[in-house]
Amino acid sequence: MDIHQFLELFVGRWRSQRSDHQFGEGNGSDARSLIEITALELDDPELIAICEKHDVDPNLAIHPMKFSWEEESLSSNKPKGNVLFVPIPNDVATPQKGSILSGQNKGLYELGSDESLAIQTLTAQGAIEERIWYGNPNLRFRVATLLQKNNSQDPRVQRSTFYSEIRSAMPKA
Amino acid sequence: MDIHQFLELFVGRWRSQRSDHQFGEGNGSDARSLIEITALELDDPELIAICEKHDVDPNLAIHPMKFSWEEESLSSNKPKGNVLFVPIPNDVATPQKGSILSGQNKGLYELGSDESLAIQTLTAQGAIEERIWYGNPNLRFRVATLLQKNNSQDPRVQRSTFYSEIRSAMPKA
Repeated sequence: MDIHQFLELFVGRWRSQRSDHQFGEGNGSDARSLIEITALELDDPELIAICEKHDVDPNLAIHPMKFSWEEESLSSNKPKGNVLFVPIPNDVATPQKGSILSGQNKGLYELGSDESLAIQTLTAQGAIEERIWYGNPNLRFRVATLLQKNNSQDPRVQRSTFYSEIRSAMPKA
Repeated sequence: MDIHQFLELFVGRWRSQRSDHQFGEGNGSDARSLIEITALELDDPELIAICEKHDVDPNLAIHPMKFSWEEESLSSNKPKGNVLFVPIPNDVATPQKGSILSGQNKGLYELGSDESLAIQTLTAQGAIEERIWYGNPNLRFRVATLLQKNNSQDPRVQRSTFYSEIRSAMPKA
């Protein structure tokens, strides 16, 4: 599976189950949510806006997408949101490595020989390390680890979250 | 980090937190346990016994270990157990790939370029796919996915379990 096949499989609707492991203060929480991932055209206004913000040519993007999610909740005020996910390869010849634009952040991605995608994003507070892989084309795993800056030492691992995501519908044609 | 450094870091005592995601019948369960991993000598009788069972020369083993675990539980009858973990490289020159003997099973391992260890084990009921990596030398992540044989189709993913494991003590000298 190359990076193109890997990213193409993202598109669709997924039922997501989340388990939070906290290493600092506080307790982890588990939750279920529905995630809809749609492919964007290269002339999409939101795509152009995020590329301009990061000073990147939108035509360099491969498989730009929009993630929309809504958490399952008994309250009428369900947590929800959306975010763009725009991979920009370093080089057309080596698309397995590059940057990912997402909201305010710009991360680095690399698809490993074991077909897992690693994404590292530096944030104002520290860093987020993600690893994404497939159990099969309709089952995706994701572990996100949050590291928090310390004054003196290496960043401290604050929390890590495991997601298992089952495809619930094929993308609309 | 090469396979030797990767496996050497296993040794020690770990506090483990587990989250189970079930995809078939039944509900997942979360649990905490204490895992003690000790290095074995090449002349250890248990190591020699498992190698004989699998018809392998014990001198080919790298970093053979014994895992002992005990689940945290309010009952006086705490679930516990132990199992050997014996990596046998395919070839001395390429130790990042080989087999792992563990109990009745013999799995295949490979350390990827992204420093994650993949282990695939065929069982009588199906297969177990594991992925192990470090957040830092004292924080280890592990996802184990259980696939169950079907009569006709590809094996079905039954359950996947996320473990985050924090080192709680250095190995005894």
